[in-house]
Amino acid sequence: MGALYMGNKPLLHVDQRVSVVVEQLLRLLHHCGAPPTDVDLLHGPGTTMGDVLKGAEPRSTLFTGSQRVAERLAVELHGKVFLEDAGFDWKILGPDVRDLDYVAWQCDQDAYACTGQKCSAQSILFAHSNWVIAGLLDRITDLATSRKLSDLTVGPVLSWTTKSILDHTKRLLQIPGAKLLFGGKPLSGHSIPEVYGAVEPTAVFIPLEQALLPEHFGVVTTEVFGPFQVVTEWQDGQLPQVLDACERMSHHLTAAVVSNDINFVQHVLGNTVNGTTYVGIRARTTGAPQNHWFGPAGDPRGAGIGTPEAIRLVWSCHREIITDFGPVPPPSFLVQS
Amino acid sequence: MGALYMGNKPLLHVDQRVSVVVEQLLRLLHHCGAPPTDVDLLHGPGTTMGDVLKGAEPRSTLFTGSQRVAERLAVELHGKVFLEDAGFDWKILGPDVRDLDYVAWQCDQDAYACTGQKCSAQSILFAHSNWVIAGLLDRITDLATSRKLSDLTVGPVLSWTTKSILDHTKRLLQIPGAKLLFGGKPLSGHSIPEVYGAVEPTAVFIPLEQALLPEHFGVVTTEVFGPFQVVTEWQDGQLPQVLDACERMSHHLTAAVVSNDINFVQHVLGNTVNGTTYVGIRARTTGAPQNHWFGPAGDPRGAGIGTPEAIRLVWSCHREIITDFGPVPPPSFLVQS
Amino acid sequence: MGALYMGNKPLLHVDQRVSVVVEQLLRLLHHCGAPPTDVDLLHGPGTTMGDVLKGAEPRSTLFTGSQRVAERLAVELHGKVFLEDAGFDWKILGPDVRDLDYVAWQCDQDAYACTGQKCSAQSILFAHSNWVIAGLLDRITDLATSRKLSDLTVGPVLSWTTKSILDHTKRLLQIPGAKLLFGGKPLSGHSIPEVYGAVEPTAVFIPLEQALLPEHFGVVTTEVFGPFQVVTEWQDGQLPQVLDACERMSHHLTAAVVSNDINFVQHVLGNTVNGTTYVGIRARTTGAPQNHWFGPAGDPRGAGIGTPEAIRLVWSCHREIITDFGPVPPPSFLVQS
Amino acid sequence: MGALYMGNKPLLHVDQRVSVVVEQLLRLLHHCGAPPTDVDLLHGPGTTMGDVLKGAEPRSTLFTGSQRVAERLAVELHGKVFLEDAGFDWKILGPDVRDLDYVAWQCDQDAYACTGQKCSAQSILFAHSNWVIAGLLDRITDLATSRKLSDLTVGPVLSWTTKSILDHTKRLLQIPGAKLLFGGKPLSGHSIPEVYGAVEPTAVFIPLEQALLPEHFGVVTTEVFGPFQVVTEWQDGQLPQVLDACERMSHHLTAAVVSNDINFVQHVLGNTVNGTTYVGIRARTTGAPQNHWFGPAGDPRGAGIGTPEAIRLVWSCHREIITDFGPVPPPSFLVQS
Repeated sequence: MGALYMGNKPLLHVDQRVSVVVEQLLRLLHHCGAPPTDVDLLHGPGTTMGDVLKGAEPRSTLFTGSQRVAERLAVELHGKVFLEDAGFDWKILGPDVRDLDYVAWQCDQDAYACTGQKCSAQSILFAHSNWVIAGLLDRITDLATSRKLSDLTVGPVLSWTTKSILDHTKRLLQIPGAKLLFGGKPLSGHSIPEVYGAVEPTAVFIPLEQALLPEHFGVVTTEVFGPFQVVTEWQDGQLPQVLDACERMSHHLTAAVVSNDINFVQHVLGNTVNGTTYVGIRARTTGAPQNHWFGPAGDPRGAGIGTPEAIRLVWSCHREIITDFGPVPPPSFLVQS
Repeated sequence: MGALYMGNKPLLHVDQRVSVVVEQLLRLLHHCGAPPTDVDLLHGPGTTMGDVLKGAEPRSTLFTGSQRVAERLAVELHGKVFLEDAGFDWKILGPDVRDLDYVAWQCDQDAYACTGQKCSAQSILFAHSNWVIAGLLDRITDLATSRKLSDLTVGPVLSWTTKSILDHTKRLLQIPGAKLLFGGKPLSGHSIPEVYGAVEPTAVFIPLEQALLPEHFGVVTTEVFGPFQVVTEWQDGQLPQVLDACERMSHHLTAAVVSNDINFVQHVLGNTVNGTTYVGIRARTTGAPQNHWFGPAGDPRGAGIGTPEAIRLVWSCHREIITDFGPVPPPSFLVQS
Repeated sequence: MGALYMGNKPLLHVDQRVSVVVEQLLRLLHHCGAPPTDVDLLHGPGTTMGDVLKGAEPRSTLFTGSQRVAERLAVELHGKVFLEDAGFDWKILGPDVRDLDYVAWQCDQDAYACTGQKCSAQSILFAHSNWVIAGLLDRITDLATSRKLSDLTVGPVLSWTTKSILDHTKRLLQIPGAKLLFGGKPLSGHSIPEVYGAVEPTAVFIPLEQALLPEHFGVVTTEVFGPFQVVTEWQDGQLPQVLDACERMSHHLTAAVVSNDINFVQHVLGNTVNGTTYVGIRARTTGAPQNHWFGPAGDPRGAGIGTPEAIRLVWSCHREIITDFGPVPPPSFLVQS
Repeated sequence: MGALYMGNKPLLHVDQRVSVVVEQLLRLLHHCGAPPTDVDLLHGPGTTMGDVLKGAEPRSTLFTGSQRVAERLAVELHGKVFLEDAGFDWKILGPDVRDLDYVAWQCDQDAYACTGQKCSAQSILFAHSNWVIAGLLDRITDLATSRKLSDLTVGPVLSWTTKSILDHTKRLLQIPGAKLLFGGKPLSGHSIPEVYGAVEPTAVFIPLEQALLPEHFGVVTTEVFGPFQVVTEWQDGQLPQVLDACERMSHHLTAAVVSNDINFVQHVLGNTVNGTTYVGIRARTTGAPQNHWFGPAGDPRGAGIGTPEAIRLVWSCHREIITDFGPVPPPSFLVQS
């Protein structure tokens, strides 16, 4: 809609598995009076869309999706692109424990609501040991294991199969000190086709020192677009390692700093670069109560979604008109240079 | 300076022929107290800088220079780049003739001041026939032919040789109806080395219909970074062709609409996309009396220079911090989804 | 509504003759869910409201109404007031005649739509003689005299009686050179009570030199809140007198400069101070096609209505919070002064 | 200077005792090239300035000074005035004690730097009992009693005599439970004339409950434009009384909330209205490290000083120009209403 607001004629393409939904939205817009020629929709595979982009030379492209396709598009389109790609999003719990039930509930929501299929999902949790001692992980386990297919608090995964999620879980569990907190099993009693994923909400604990090792860091920070998260623990004195981990992640979409200690909060904010960062004891990585700018930071190609400023950035650009209607100066002022 | 204001640590590279000037500027900054480690400077050929960029993976790059290098950089850096490239800048003179001497003086300044070596130089002039009848071209000829080496109103060209400029002139003069308005000859009585260019201020007239032909359009709209311009004439009824020419140019840096007819001005503005556009009888393509946003429009990679907004766009980015310190809602509000 | 948006608890009072309408609006708000305690409404005469204001000491007051009451309120409330008062609004027609039918229609609308009862109504028309020669006054006469009660294009006046409007007309007609362009008669065939006014749309022509004389200026620029306007004519060379008249008027609500000559427009804008000023051949004094800031200029008490900026000015204020959470400097920095 | 930046022609008047200083500043401006006719300066008593204002009918007036004169001016000028008047400024120390030396030093600076003669001086200190137990008052006493004439850390008072300050001190000490923390004596060994004040830095402690009594509140919250402050103490549970005291003060210039407890800070901010409010452990009432908006809040007459927004508010106003150059709609759209 932002593209339309700014007067563009967009060509819309979404993953062919959900493209039918967008078509219905467009038909709804037409029903409400939108001119049918204002938006084009392309059904089909991404390769077809890629061919069209090459031929059409659009002025700008907004891409939301995987990091791999994003980088390829950036090259093919010579950088004429805005990206809102990979979301391996972190949450840091500070040393000040309070409102335990609320924080546990928010962790469960951030990681597993919508079966974890949102680019803002909580992918890794850095819990200060004070929270672990206070019983946060038990509380999260209680919440996650109560999710079930029958009330739709868990469901099918579109882009990862059951096998690929469980294989990824196994790889993580081979890291020294790793342990399964909960999940790690297929869902049962359902008719979800095999091309989709169907697993219980899952969390794997990895010791902080192990997660930071170069041989593990890549797999630990791989985004699973499903009901899956990594959990780790840090103690006083280990904040530099936590911040180092955040810095080494390649993409910086959302993040949360759960603490009401203003000096702790300012220190973490001053040493990280994520685009949409929630801070305070109620901090979340996803499902913001109102419509914020949503997008990564630290990359000139970074897209923003939602607010007027974000729409202006992505779907318009600055144009400077200087009016100079006169009067003209006298001839004596007109010298050559 | 914008990069520094926003807290970056820039690596600076300029063409090796003028790099010595920038070094002196940095030394001046150091003399005034700037920390020597805040900016790095690389002397050397562009290929070396390209290698460094590949290895360093900078968060962002601002490139000012030729269109060819710009497109290559955009691909190599996966689009993490802002461009302020080619400047084939146009000026349209509307049907309302007034302040003839001033407009002629401004045309001469825009095309030939600094020996035409500025990305905002006037590269093509679309003069309404009312201006031609009123004698504008004669007046410009008088001004341009009075420029001479002895008072530095003309000088050496750094990036084009004398031969390449004169060859380009000859190619244009082969277009049917083309004629040389003035110039087209080497400067004499000087010791400028042959690797540089030394030509008289030059203007070639091309009939509008011929300029628009596909076989001529490319050469007519080739930017010469020196004292050179193309002139053409349009009549009532031909504005659509003029606007079509402006639309077909591939880059959109500066432009000028010389007219105090507000409806004419609005029509041209509404049908063009240049970034920094001056309008009104005093309109210029270059040398703005104050510091405007300076940059192209219509390209997500378009850089801006000069104003706070431009510096923020290129050297910083939006980061959204949402504080949510509490209080937390009661347990009954915490349901899973 | 602006007062509510900014979190105030307003006490609302409107003229007792139309207060019943506002009550219905409030009941509509309550029906839609507005908390009944968020706004108070006072039915009754202005004197009662004055007494309440004295006792309640509200933080701020917005007054819309007559200039006389406005000035008294400003004193009684020690200046804690925003005013949107008298609207004796002018329209200047520049020398460039075009779109005659449209301009005549707009003049008729500005002066007589809503029976002229709007603070933005056109109260005086300064027509350049080119417009008079082109037949503008005849065209306005045609339009105004076609208004009639049966289709509601004219109606009762709430705050002036028939007699007071006609008496004012007679006073103006005693000025040397004055003449009645049209109207000046009571409406017939109706049952409008005598406490209200019922007159034909009326225009009185006054020669510019006469209007400017100190003995006439006051009566010429008296606002009639009804279907009434003054018309005058100016010629090349008389613009300074026109601008002088605009400057001498005591209040500066809306204005219109009807011209597409950009230099004329800029000259008039640079020499006047009205708050909401429309310029261009389509300029109006009232009935703006979208929601502009609406309010006077040049007075620290000037209220604005409509836009977010206006609402912020009147119903909120700047408050500056500076956070300074640390860290603290070392003791050696702490010296007394 | 703000008045000049916005294009006004100001008439400047300052208290006749220091008017000579402003004259020298103006002469400096003239020396630097300022046109001598751009600012007028009036030497003389306030009554003369009042007469001039009545005759000149300035478009706007900015008054900085006593509350009494401010209110009189507001009436005389019918509210065409901006006020930056009385500054009885409070500081609240929250329950979280830290950085004791720094906070004590800041309290001493806020109350006694410039001999307390600044409208942002700390006039009353609400110290949580945790701070009193930690020894804050002793530390402030040490600092204040080390101030002396010889190093200019204390000096003459322009607008209060020695006798009037000491009489005020005595009145406060008659309140039950009041005690002198330090000071309360004339300075000795000097030649300051009797028309000025010369007293030691002074602090009087008043129990919170006594300060809130209607018979004492007026004298407790009387601003002394000199080296004088009131100190009181509050305990857990008494925050509502502290906030009530802040609410009952009649003017709201600066304030400080000294705490790094973000929830405490937000609660106090949400229940007070002061214009320039510093929060955090480094919070001050005066001497801001950079140039903030400085002014009261909650009063439509409230002036702001310092920032571009403040200058625009006081020395300019919103004026809305709507351009509407066409084209005009076809005749069929022109209906009367």
